Amino acid sequence: MPQSCTTPPQSDPTPIFEAFRGNYATELLCAAIGHFNLFAHLTDGALSFDELRGRLGLDQRPANVLITALRAMGLLLADVRGNLDLTPLAREHLTPGGPFDVSDYVGLAANNPGVLEMVERLRSNRPAGAKPGAGGASFIYREGIESAMETEASARRLTLALAGRAKNVAPVLAAKLPIDEDVRKVLDVGGGTGIYSIALLQRHQHLKAVVFDRAEVLKVALEMGNDYGVADRLELLPGDMFADELPQDCDLILLSNILHDWDVPQCQKLVNRCAAALPPRGQLVIHDVFLSDDLGGPLPLALYSAALFTLTEGRAYSATEYRKMLTTAGLHPKPVIPTLIHCGLLAGVKR
Amino acid sequence: MPQSCTTPPQSDPTPIFEAFRGNYATELLCAAIGHFNLFAHLTDGALSFDELRGRLGLDQRPANVLITALRAMGLLLADVRGNLDLTPLAREHLTPGGPFDVSDYVGLAANNPGVLEMVERLRSNRPAGAKPGAGGASFIYREGIESAMETEASARRLTLALAGRAKNVAPVLAAKLPIDEDVRKVLDVGGGTGIYSIALLQRHQHLKAVVFDRAEVLKVALEMGNDYGVADRLELLPGDMFADELPQDCDLILLSNILHDWDVPQCQKLVNRCAAALPPRGQLVIHDVFLSDDLGGPLPLALYSAALFTLTEGRAYSATEYRKMLTTAGLHPKPVIPTLIHCGLLAGVKR
Repeated sequence: MPQSCTTPPQSDPTPIFEAFRGNYATELLCAAIGHFNLFAHLTDGALSFDELRGRLGLDQRPANVLITALRAMGLLLADVRGNLDLTPLAREHLTPGGPFDVSDYVGLAANNPGVLEMVERLRSNRPAGAKPGAGGASFIYREGIESAMETEASARRLTLALAGRAKNVAPVLAAKLPIDEDVRKVLDVGGGTGIYSIALLQRHQHLKAVVFDRAEVLKVALEMGNDYGVADRLELLPGDMFADELPQDCDLILLSNILHDWDVPQCQKLVNRCAAALPPRGQLVIHDVFLSDDLGGPLPLALYSAALFTLTEGRAYSATEYRKMLTTAGLHPKPVIPTLIHCGLLAGVKR
Repeated sequence: MPQSCTTPPQSDPTPIFEAFRGNYATELLCAAIGHFNLFAHLTDGALSFDELRGRLGLDQRPANVLITALRAMGLLLADVRGNLDLTPLAREHLTPGGPFDVSDYVGLAANNPGVLEMVERLRSNRPAGAKPGAGGASFIYREGIESAMETEASARRLTLALAGRAKNVAPVLAAKLPIDEDVRKVLDVGGGTGIYSIALLQRHQHLKAVVFDRAEVLKVALEMGNDYGVADRLELLPGDMFADELPQDCDLILLSNILHDWDVPQCQKLVNRCAAALPPRGQLVIHDVFLSDDLGGPLPLALYSAALFTLTEGRAYSATEYRKMLTTAGLHPKPVIPTLIHCGLLAGVKR
C-alpha cells in the first residue's frame, strides 16, 4: 500500500516553527543594541536604508534581515519618505541615557554565543558553513562552501529533516495550485525529496513530473517515489540548476522554497533560466514565504528570514520582490495563493 | 535639581523584553525534542508531573520550567486529573514517525550552543555561574557560587543594568501600592539600587525607607538616593537577607523581584523571616511576575521563568504559589494589583 500525500495535517504546525525561531529575535535585538549601537545612529533623525546600512557597515542582505526584524518588533518605522526612524517605543527605551532606557539590561546578553555568531554572520554576510572548518552546516551547494549536501549521509539526513516541514505543506500546495489538463509535465527545480511533485502526481493522474536536484539528494527522491507509488510518472534528473540545461518540455516549473536560499542576483539568474525553459503559456510557480511588501514584517517571517540568512545565502523576500524578478524575466505575475506554514504560491505566466 | 521617579514611561517596554527572551523558546523546544525525547514519553498516555519528571531525570525546578513553557507553546496540556498529555498539535507533529512529524526539522538545531547550555542547566539544576570558572554570571549571591555581585565593578554594572527595567516599573509600583498614613517606614529587602524605595519616597512625603542589600550593591543605592533627592529619608543597611537580622520597625516589607531568584525552600525561609520582622497589621508585599495558577503559561512569563532559571536558583511562580508561602508564614494574602512589564503586587497582612 503506497503512502498518501493528499490529506493535509489536521492541526496547523505553524506555532511550532514560530517557537523554534525565537532565538533569532534575541540575537538580532542584542546584536543591534550591544554590537551595532543601531538606535543611537537614529537619535538625530531618520536615515535612508542605505545611509543607515552604511553607518552600520552592513551589506544589503544583512541590513535587510536586521532592519526587517527590528521593524517587525515595533522598534523602527519607515516614514512617509521611506526613511527609517525610531518608533516612540525605541526612542524612549533604547536610546542611550534616557530615564527609561533598557539597553544595558538587554546588553547583558550581548556576548552570548548565539548573539556573537549572529554578529559575525551580519558583518561577513556569509552563511554559517562558509567558514573553513565550520562543518558543513550549509543547506545549499556552492563551490568553496562546504555543503551538507555534498556527502550522502548528511545529504540524506538533512533532506529528510527538511522534508518534515514539506510533508505538511505539500498536500495543501497540491490542493491549491491550479492544474488543468493543459499542464502535462511539471519540472520541480531543487525538488529535494520530490514531495511536492509526489503530492501533485497523487492529485492529478494525468500529470508527469521531473525532479531536478543534485545526485545525492535524488537518492532520497527515488525511495520516496516508490514509497508513494508514483515512480512510473516521476523522472529524476541530476544536475546543477545554475549551470546545467533545464528540460524544455515542461509546462509548469516549480521553485518551492528554493529562491529564499539565494541572494537577489542568483534568484534573478534562476528565474531567468526557468523562464527561458518554459514554452509559451507555460508558468513558473514560486512557492515560498512572503514578507510584507514594505519589508516591515511580520515578525515570524522576519525571524524565518534570519534563519535563512544564517544557514544559506538568501533571506525571505516580499511578493513585490518576487514579482519584479518574474517581470524582469518576461513573465506575468498572478495573485498570491496562500498554502500553509506562512507559505504561498506566486505564478508567473509566459505569454 | 533631583531626578524624578514619579512619572511612568509613555510607551510600554514589554514588547522589547518579549523579543529579548525568544531564545528560551528555541532552547527549551529543541532540548525537549532533541535531547529529552519528551513527547515520545507521552505517546502511550498521560503521566503525572512527577512521573514525567522521573522519566526525564529532572529535578522539580527544571521540570517546572520546561513543562510550563511547553504548555504555553500549546504542546502539552493538563487533563481533568491534572496529568500531562500531548495536545493534538504535539501528537500530530512531534511524536516520532507520523506523516506530519517535524521533530527532525526542529532537531537540526539540537546541538546549537544555546540549546546545549540549556540542556546542561536542566540536567544539573544549577545556574550558569555555578560551574567553576564560568565567570560570575550569577545574579544572586550564595557561598560556593561565583556571583557577579561579589566584586564592586561587576556588581555596579549588573545592578545598574537591571535597574533599567526597574526604573520603568518603579513609578507604576509607587502609584499602585496602597500606602496610607499608618505606613511610616518601608523595608526594601534586596532593594539593589533602591529605585522602588525612591519612587515610594518621592510619592509619599511622610514615608521613610530602608534598603537592605549587600554592601557592594548599596554603593549604587547611595548615589541614587542623592541623585533623586531622598537621601535624608533613605537608610542603607548592609547584610545577608538569609542570615542577618532584619529591622523590626518597618510597617511594610517589599520583596520586589527577589523571590524569583530562589527555589521554594529559600523563598519560604525569606517570607518567614520577613513575616517575623513585621509588627501586627504590617504587610509583606511581593512584587513579581505571576505565572497562571495552573502553571500553564503565559508564554512570555514561561520564557522569563527560563531566564530566571538559567541565571539564578529561582524561576517564575504563580500567585497561588506565593499565596501558599504567605499563609504558611501566617500572613493573609490580598488580591493581586498589576503594575508593568508583566509584574504585579501581592500583599500578605499580619493580623
